[in-house]
Amino acid sequence: MNRVDLSIFIPDSLTAETGDLKIKTYKVGLIGRAAAIFGVNRIVIYHDDADGEAGFIRDILNYMDTPQYLRRKVFPIMKELKHVGILPPLRTPHHPTGKPVAGEYRQGLTVKRVKKGTLVDIGADKLALCREKLTVNRVMSFRVIRLGKEILIEPDEPEDRYWGYEVLSTEQGLSKSLKTVDADVVVATSRYASPITSILDEVKSKVEGARRVAILFGGPYKGLPEIDADVWVNTIPGQRTETVRTEEAVLATLSVFNMLTQIDEK
Amino acid sequence: MNRVDLSIFIPDSLTAETGDLKIKTYKVGLIGRAAAIFGVNRIVIYHDDADGEAGFIRDILNYMDTPQYLRRKVFPIMKELKHVGILPPLRTPHHPTGKPVAGEYRQGLTVKRVKKGTLVDIGADKLALCREKLTVNRVMSFRVIRLGKEILIEPDEPEDRYWGYEVLSTEQGLSKSLKTVDADVVVATSRYASPITSILDEVKSKVEGARRVAILFGGPYKGLPEIDADVWVNTIPGQRTETVRTEEAVLATLSVFNMLTQIDEK
Repeated sequence: MNRVDLSIFIPDSLTAETGDLKIKTYKVGLIGRAAAIFGVNRIVIYHDDADGEAGFIRDILNYMDTPQYLRRKVFPIMKELKHVGILPPLRTPHHPTGKPVAGEYRQGLTVKRVKKGTLVDIGADKLALCREKLTVNRVMSFRVIRLGKEILIEPDEPEDRYWGYEVLSTEQGLSKSLKTVDADVVVATSRYASPITSILDEVKSKVEGARRVAILFGGPYKGLPEIDADVWVNTIPGQRTETVRTEEAVLATLSVFNMLTQIDEK
Repeated sequence: MNRVDLSIFIPDSLTAETGDLKIKTYKVGLIGRAAAIFGVNRIVIYHDDADGEAGFIRDILNYMDTPQYLRRKVFPIMKELKHVGILPPLRTPHHPTGKPVAGEYRQGLTVKRVKKGTLVDIGADKLALCREKLTVNRVMSFRVIRLGKEILIEPDEPEDRYWGYEVLSTEQGLSKSLKTVDADVVVATSRYASPITSILDEVKSKVEGARRVAILFGGPYKGLPEIDADVWVNTIPGQRTETVRTEEAVLATLSVFNMLTQIDEK
């Protein structure tokens, strides 16, 4: 799924099964990790539960997608972020662990406008200068042009590697949320749908021809609502447990799709 | 993977990444859930780390595999089981939630030997009688023969449904541990192996012909040690993160194998 723009849709009831904030945090962490492992470009949180925790899920996912060196500056101390220490790091290319290197792409936080442009925190020992007038207090991507007395950077994003996911919390039901993403193929997952094994070629050809794919997941208590999808599929045929949790379904399904879309790319 | 006997091998370093007992518990829980979802018959814990926590991992996995109505009796209060409350239930056929029904299969704890046989706790309002002399304090499977003034049961296990996993902690390295399972096909997983997409037919035909399959997983810090395997495979081709954790690899890999082995069973 290298060239495809991939969105996954998860319900705001994701965290409803447990009252334990640490476990809620870890559960959202599993979604963030699955998204990163399989190169998901967008996580859309739709509303399906009166007690849904969309804001919490969004904050945890954004926290994970933010490089370590910016987290404290971007995320104020919040009670609901109390347990972020247990979140596994993504360890993706957009989270470098060393000092900046010339030519490298790097995320930065725009800190202050100055005469020459904008000062940006890219996790170096001093602020870097971008010669453009940028809105402050935003996380953006840059390329390091020159290191020296002054660190010179310019806005840029690499196209040849995974650069993290964006998070959208729509506060809308699934069908309205789906409109925020202009997907040409919508895949709905359900244990009551045809097993992937029986419609493999159909799923494969639909996804291969697509530019933007959306994969929809239901909540832990109820599956997906009725929705217009290009294909309904059960990605876990023959499941031995009565239910499969959203975070389990996301990892299992992305694993299958990752394989499916690479089979002919040998 | 319905007819195949499936074992997974996980390292005792599984829980080493975190010092938080609640997260350790949940992490092992993910392995138990993945095993149940995909019908794994055996989880073998091998030794790969001086600080490995094989005993803890074994206890949590066994706890999960024990039906709710027996847990308190089988597992004494132990400090390391403090957080079992956050474990998701398996919700498999061998964990019935209702009262016993005639004809039903049910796990029971042998409690006491009596003249007529053995009294067994099967989660009914009274102990059931099995007319055989059984070792006490064991969890076994039974079939309910008759309900009435007396509940009559006999040792039996169904063959047509998933009946949970057994847990083996070998306290040995991987290669010795492998001998405890008489697998005819051994699959070793590694990110440095051939992508599953490029050796799909080979993997598929090997697994399909097998009676007993073992899938081996490495630890969070290092992958698998050198080992004689029938096939080495990367089940997460093109991973975008630098590492994939054991619990993530288990779920992703079982998902791929579940699909693979069912493709021709339409």
